[in-house]
Amino acid sequence: MSSTDSRRSIATVCLSGTLEDKLTAAARAGFDGVEIFENDLVASSWSAKEIGEHCSELGLSIDLYQPFRDFEAVPPDVLARNLRRAELKFDVMGRLGADTMLVCSSVSPDAVDDDDLAAEQLHLLAERAAARGIRIAYEALAWGRFVNTYEHSWRIVRRAAHPALGLCLDSFHILSRGSDPAAIRTIPGEKLFFLQLADAPRLQMDVLQWSRHHRLFPGQGAFDLTAFTGHVLAAGYRGPLSLEVFNDVFRQADPGPAAVDAMRSLLGLQETLGAAGLPPAPALSGHAFAELAVDADAEVRLAEALRGLGFTETGHHRSKPVRLWRQGDARILLNSAEAPGASVAAVAVESADPVASAKRAQRLLAPILPRSHRADEADLSAIAAPDGTSVFFCRTGADTADSWLGDFTETSPEGAGAGVTGIDHLALTQPFDHFDEAALFYRAVLGLAPEPVTEFAAPFGLVRSRTVADPSGRVRIALESALLRRGDWAPGVREPQRIALTTGDALASARRMRELGAPLLEIPGNYYDDLDARLAPEPSLLAALREESVLYDRDEHGELLHFFTVVLGGRVIFEVVQRIGGYAGDGAANSPVRMAAHRRQRAAAA
Amino acid sequence: MSSTDSRRSIATVCLSGTLEDKLTAAARAGFDGVEIFENDLVASSWSAKEIGEHCSELGLSIDLYQPFRDFEAVPPDVLARNLRRAELKFDVMGRLGADTMLVCSSVSPDAVDDDDLAAEQLHLLAERAAARGIRIAYEALAWGRFVNTYEHSWRIVRRAAHPALGLCLDSFHILSRGSDPAAIRTIPGEKLFFLQLADAPRLQMDVLQWSRHHRLFPGQGAFDLTAFTGHVLAAGYRGPLSLEVFNDVFRQADPGPAAVDAMRSLLGLQETLGAAGLPPAPALSGHAFAELAVDADAEVRLAEALRGLGFTETGHHRSKPVRLWRQGDARILLNSAEAPGASVAAVAVESADPVASAKRAQRLLAPILPRSHRADEADLSAIAAPDGTSVFFCRTGADTADSWLGDFTETSPEGAGAGVTGIDHLALTQPFDHFDEAALFYRAVLGLAPEPVTEFAAPFGLVRSRTVADPSGRVRIALESALLRRGDWAPGVREPQRIALTTGDALASARRMRELGAPLLEIPGNYYDDLDARLAPEPSLLAALREESVLYDRDEHGELLHFFTVVLGGRVIFEVVQRIGGYAGDGAANSPVRMAAHRRQRAAAA
Repeated sequence: MSSTDSRRSIATVCLSGTLEDKLTAAARAGFDGVEIFENDLVASSWSAKEIGEHCSELGLSIDLYQPFRDFEAVPPDVLARNLRRAELKFDVMGRLGADTMLVCSSVSPDAVDDDDLAAEQLHLLAERAAARGIRIAYEALAWGRFVNTYEHSWRIVRRAAHPALGLCLDSFHILSRGSDPAAIRTIPGEKLFFLQLADAPRLQMDVLQWSRHHRLFPGQGAFDLTAFTGHVLAAGYRGPLSLEVFNDVFRQADPGPAAVDAMRSLLGLQETLGAAGLPPAPALSGHAFAELAVDADAEVRLAEALRGLGFTETGHHRSKPVRLWRQGDARILLNSAEAPGASVAAVAVESADPVASAKRAQRLLAPILPRSHRADEADLSAIAAPDGTSVFFCRTGADTADSWLGDFTETSPEGAGAGVTGIDHLALTQPFDHFDEAALFYRAVLGLAPEPVTEFAAPFGLVRSRTVADPSGRVRIALESALLRRGDWAPGVREPQRIALTTGDALASARRMRELGAPLLEIPGNYYDDLDARLAPEPSLLAALREESVLYDRDEHGELLHFFTVVLGGRVIFEVVQRIGGYAGDGAANSPVRMAAHRRQRAAAA
Repeated sequence: MSSTDSRRSIATVCLSGTLEDKLTAAARAGFDGVEIFENDLVASSWSAKEIGEHCSELGLSIDLYQPFRDFEAVPPDVLARNLRRAELKFDVMGRLGADTMLVCSSVSPDAVDDDDLAAEQLHLLAERAAARGIRIAYEALAWGRFVNTYEHSWRIVRRAAHPALGLCLDSFHILSRGSDPAAIRTIPGEKLFFLQLADAPRLQMDVLQWSRHHRLFPGQGAFDLTAFTGHVLAAGYRGPLSLEVFNDVFRQADPGPAAVDAMRSLLGLQETLGAAGLPPAPALSGHAFAELAVDADAEVRLAEALRGLGFTETGHHRSKPVRLWRQGDARILLNSAEAPGASVAAVAVESADPVASAKRAQRLLAPILPRSHRADEADLSAIAAPDGTSVFFCRTGADTADSWLGDFTETSPEGAGAGVTGIDHLALTQPFDHFDEAALFYRAVLGLAPEPVTEFAAPFGLVRSRTVADPSGRVRIALESALLRRGDWAPGVREPQRIALTTGDALASARRMRELGAPLLEIPGNYYDDLDARLAPEPSLLAALREESVLYDRDEHGELLHFFTVVLGGRVIFEVVQRIGGYAGDGAANSPVRMAAHRRQRAAAA
């Protein structure tokens, strides 16, 4: 079963703005069609006819008009009113050029629990619709008063037995209730009129609130949409794959990037369904380098810090104002830039096939970055992540044009160092609107696997964190974001970024780096008193940790020792980590203490 | 039973920032003591001893150290580890100068369901604590593994029978489960070691998530804390009333205003418990006036608009650059100001006793605004609301110094008007951090009653709304706020404000105002097509509404007709409302359509 030829649609309710904003964003992201959400039409200054014409011009079909509520299984007087209401909406659909209407199962106190009556009245509605060339797609809401499973909606549709009446299946309504979607395969494909897709995190809350506020695009949540969609396609469904996602963040985010995020989610889903369109993600084998954009002051500060951390400036770029600092396999580029302070401007990963990595990224709507380089310089394949960070695909060791190291003139051999062997991970704070989008981007484009979302209470509010990593853990990117948009009063750093370096002996590295003058962060004694009470490390280890301001964590697989520099260039922090055994996390339990220490350091410096 | 002499405390977890920020804010707001939340201490650079000394200097007692988790009903080896952990925390408490430790019921997989074992081990802990001069307050978490009701925790404490072991009661844990708090009266007062107070909205969600993210200060949510606290005091509890509120918004808001909000909530609670400290809120009988601060351009625009709405400029202030515009009992002041555009600078309400209103406000920590006025001018009592808006207390008709109208020189008699008879309500968009604070402010300070919180999907994100009103509905203030902080991409108005005027005939007023040249907002035809389908007004009424761009709503009590001007001075909108029968709301169902129309108008003007 393939879904390569499925059309891709999106409900206007997924996006922020007026209907005009939404349609433009959907068309630009490459959608084939839209579901027109009634409230968007009602608030629009364009007439239904003008909306239809505008969609045509944009190349968007109108695949569904939705929702029509509280229709079926009612007393005769209510039925008469509901049929009048439906006819008026059929008028609108006629002007719009839409031929399928979503009718969702009733939540009305007027309705009665009578499947025969529901089927009879839906038959009547379908008859009226058919006379206007319209089809009715009946959907069981997860919180429908009497009809709230797809099996139940199918029994009613089968009983009604009208060719203009079929089902709308919505992955949220079905999977949120824990229903088994496998029986969808038993429904004749021609009775499946429409398919709405939404992912969601697993939340223990009222299903209506969960649905209205917390849906996500496929691949961002916890639902198995590949299996679900596979059942629907196996049943013979031939309509569009259409996204219907109610999400508080998307509702207020710029609809342009949100529509791209949505399209990427569908392409990713189609890939897992076996659609052959995308080149597979080449294997990644590590972080090649991290590039910091630095102004003149920050460059001095960063160079001092890197020297203190045991790095050596080993080369400079042949044509650009870029210096290469090395220690083992950890490579940091300092790129002189205009923007104030310091920022991680680029993440570079080792790819088995950089060109294929970039091609895949382009197919997944990642902006390809133009690179100015001389004819004899490496043609680094680069794309832009949602937060604007460049992502480079490299083969550092290769004897090819991808070997970016050849662009650097060696100025000095690498020094003795302080025990750093490579880059363990990067932690990048994401702009508020782009947290889920970023996780999907790294998952789909780079083929990294998202770990579960975690939250912790930082000194100035809750922080949400999600790490994406390749299966071997050699490429790790921790995405962080304030749970609420960062407020006005909170002092300190705009979207801090961390570069975490690997060491085999954190205590020795910390000692050596202090000798070298690294600007390491001091951790208060209370932390070690609490560590003693919580995890009771050996007294000699505890004393050494306290002495060196090294933080500690333990899980069922192993241990983590890690320490930090102060904030450099207003935004960048270096971290040094030692993993013992199979410790899986990034020491999130220590984040509030570390963040409070960073805040004190900044206050003291101010 | 009186609580006038109860001390007032706050848990540091209620407030944002580092421990230093939190203690300063608590002391400034007038709290007597604090609960030290362990995470705040662990992250602090001050030692426990220094924290204790600092609290002393600030006049704060340390009433509780919390929380100590997962202690009781465990196998012997775990017990040994837990006792070691407790002793280390007793050390910290000794240095801190805290004598009561909160132990919350276990959620650990190590624990077993054995009340005798729990009692025996808590007895042992209490014995160790007593040797250090420490008391143990045992609390049933609502999500405790085996112990999750206060009745159960009391059975265990009674069984343990140790003088250093008592109960901590937390209103959230008890009321969230729907437990009946009346039986608290049967617990001997000396076994009630601590009382934690939190309100919350009624939410259908996992109780742990509800507790950790959505608690509110007393008076902001749906719990009956007066009855609850009454039972605890009746039982003979003599400790502090202490707030423990986990809230995502407060966690990131400026702790100074948040601590004032917290203190106001406790003062309000004590008043409902019969504490005689506060002067009662004088009756309010209507809106005296609304004052707009306008720059020169906005003043021209506003004056034109007011003329179009049927207002007459009837006077000017004797000593200030303020013009009075009147129509019936609707009075608008235009105050020439420096700040760009137009804003509602002041809300003035008619009070039976303006001086008493201001005195009460001051006791409830509202900033009193200094007023510069000449000896022969009215001494208007004014305070500042959380968003900075001034609130005046007036007696417009009185033959006293409160009669502010006497400060205006009459320049012109009132004209024929356009049917406006007064001010129906004001709608003030609140800064994100201050929504719940504002509702409590108007409730406690002015004695207005909050109506339920509602939410609707505006074009650029969800909006939350709550109206506060006096019992007769003559003073109404609608508070609105974006559900998520307003994002970067959203175009348009910074925190819009609406002044809603009353008319007895909206259609006639709209017609007359159009003739007078009022800049009224056009409503798209789709709205009226949908209105026909939804509510089916009489065809002649529908046609008139459509003709005049008047919006319509209906509830079980009556009908609402209302229409709007465009946005004036970048922020201010006039609305004209006609209430028929007992219609209770403010037409929120029409807000998305109205907002989309305002956005179009601004886009067209840009």
